[in-house]
Amino acid sequence: MIAFEIVARDVRSAARCGRLSTPHGVVETPAFMPVGTAATVKGLTPEQVRAVGTQVILANTYHLALRPGAEAVAELGGLHVFSGWDGPILTDSGGFQVFSLGELVRVDEDGVSFRSHVDGARLRLDPESATRVQNLLGADIIMAFDQCVPAAASRDEAEAATQRSIRWAQRCKQAHRREDQLLFGIVQGGLFADLRRGCAEALCEMDFPGYAVGGLALGESIEQRDEVLRDTAPYLPDERPRYLMGVGRPVDILHAVSRGIDLFDCVLPTRNGRNSHCFTSVGVVRLRNSAHARSREPLDPACACYTCRHFSRGYLRHLFLADEMLGPILASLHNIAYYQAWMKRIRAAISDGTLIEWMNSVDRI
Amino acid sequence: MIAFEIVARDVRSAARCGRLSTPHGVVETPAFMPVGTAATVKGLTPEQVRAVGTQVILANTYHLALRPGAEAVAELGGLHVFSGWDGPILTDSGGFQVFSLGELVRVDEDGVSFRSHVDGARLRLDPESATRVQNLLGADIIMAFDQCVPAAASRDEAEAATQRSIRWAQRCKQAHRREDQLLFGIVQGGLFADLRRGCAEALCEMDFPGYAVGGLALGESIEQRDEVLRDTAPYLPDERPRYLMGVGRPVDILHAVSRGIDLFDCVLPTRNGRNSHCFTSVGVVRLRNSAHARSREPLDPACACYTCRHFSRGYLRHLFLADEMLGPILASLHNIAYYQAWMKRIRAAISDGTLIEWMNSVDRI
Repeated sequence: MIAFEIVARDVRSAARCGRLSTPHGVVETPAFMPVGTAATVKGLTPEQVRAVGTQVILANTYHLALRPGAEAVAELGGLHVFSGWDGPILTDSGGFQVFSLGELVRVDEDGVSFRSHVDGARLRLDPESATRVQNLLGADIIMAFDQCVPAAASRDEAEAATQRSIRWAQRCKQAHRREDQLLFGIVQGGLFADLRRGCAEALCEMDFPGYAVGGLALGESIEQRDEVLRDTAPYLPDERPRYLMGVGRPVDILHAVSRGIDLFDCVLPTRNGRNSHCFTSVGVVRLRNSAHARSREPLDPACACYTCRHFSRGYLRHLFLADEMLGPILASLHNIAYYQAWMKRIRAAISDGTLIEWMNSVDRI
Repeated sequence: MIAFEIVARDVRSAARCGRLSTPHGVVETPAFMPVGTAATVKGLTPEQVRAVGTQVILANTYHLALRPGAEAVAELGGLHVFSGWDGPILTDSGGFQVFSLGELVRVDEDGVSFRSHVDGARLRLDPESATRVQNLLGADIIMAFDQCVPAAASRDEAEAATQRSIRWAQRCKQAHRREDQLLFGIVQGGLFADLRRGCAEALCEMDFPGYAVGGLALGESIEQRDEVLRDTAPYLPDERPRYLMGVGRPVDILHAVSRGIDLFDCVLPTRNGRNSHCFTSVGVVRLRNSAHARSREPLDPACACYTCRHFSRGYLRHLFLADEMLGPILASLHNIAYYQAWMKRIRAAISDGTLIEWMNSVDRI
């Protein structure tokens, strides 16, 4: 099975358009995955998520393993049947969430001990169990269990975690049991070019069907992130998909695409949407702002989503002020539509050869 | 304009099927109106509300007058444009909500003074202002401003409020300014048959295009409610629609239909849905119940709504336990679908002549 096929390249950058085949359909890349942490993109039906152009979603292994539990999801038919999303799904490994627990975490060579944020129970994840849980959940793409290296890590810390992540990736590969799931390796290395390159090369020797760049969107500057991508992507095989985890704003995605990244996920469109913060073709619109109180304008005049076709800014503001669920719903729906339209434009610009021109015209800040 | 046309009658009861014409479309009666308090049926898009068979919705004048204000709604195009619901809308007069404020209310012959539940501001509603506000909101059907009589009221209290409501109905009629809105009178009278009859007759002399029965769903017994309907409906003109305000459970609606009621509204399907309490063909299902944890069954095997077609009880329970918005959304959607299917079955049973047989087979408790 050729899982990934490149269909267009930008001659002025490393950007490319591809088609990633999964058992639940094809994903056109560069692609953005809305985050459905608990097997639901917050506030939206699968039908709504698809209607705005979404081809693949992400779910969080950590949250699902805690509640309702991987066995429960498997008994209920696996993630696709469970969530009603019948398109491609990617699960993270749980590592990122576990390491986010901070003081509640103890890491050793074998794995990670932590306490559940739900009920305080003592739990443990390691490469084998994280892989087993993802096998049970049944996503199309699953991720190796790694030790995330924050941007502020010292070289010694970064090196130790990176080496451990390489050893853990090997264990994940051995533990992986399902041929219908693509297991991606994750490149760590913090902000150190040689660690990133070394990690990429070590993972490539293991021959994963795809590779992620991890440990970003964690406090690094825009320039630092760009350097990491420049120091990492060239050492990943051209014919395999590359996934930049947790990034980011539309403009961040555009720049990462130019470095050869194919897949993205981020909570921004939904989390910001729930807080009335919307991405539009005329800039950020904060719907709670009193400027919109009597506005009959759509949220985004250039957008054809359900929200922008049917509702005024004045109504959307009213929903937020009245604490009505429909406000977060409609704002999230629009924000995802905005991201998906952005990705479509990126794919078109790659095919047209206009990506760099466009990128250079967009303010990075 | 003939606003209401009777198309079928049940020979064994007072039930009838009708077609109520409004500027925003025809409503087949008996009809159920989901409640969209703040110009939104909580958690659902207008598209979803319509997809489950809803023909008309209700919005609350009190809430909209406070936030965003009637002038704002008017400036934003009126309720239909504002809310994105382009079908028929009914607004209540605000009286019921105001009297629900209890200690915060002072009533005199001219109107009612109260404090806003939003910001504590001193406000006043009277027949003229309640009508003006509803003219501004722009619903297809608007309601007279009345003094609601609770079931526990003494005869003196009930009589005074009923007589005042009659005087106020006359003032509403005089204040009403829009020919494209049908103004309904509201029959009060508490549990006193002669007061109900007297009120009905007084309102009929004013010749409203429709009549509501108010002051029920306020603590009376099932038998008391049935008696009030029996003592009221016959004194309302056969050729005008009759609306029982705030009632109720599906079985309550069925019984009221047999007494000649055409229109209903109630918060139960949405409020209960948000609390995981669902109406189904196999009885009430409480989705938080652990019995559903591993259930792959749909919420209601006899239902064809989006929720029942796509999701298992196990998934719906997970959404509620994980405090995910999609749980209340999908449960509300199903409950409204259940109510609308119930109304459709009522209309069919009237046409078939099987209503009483069905009604007698359904447990009232």
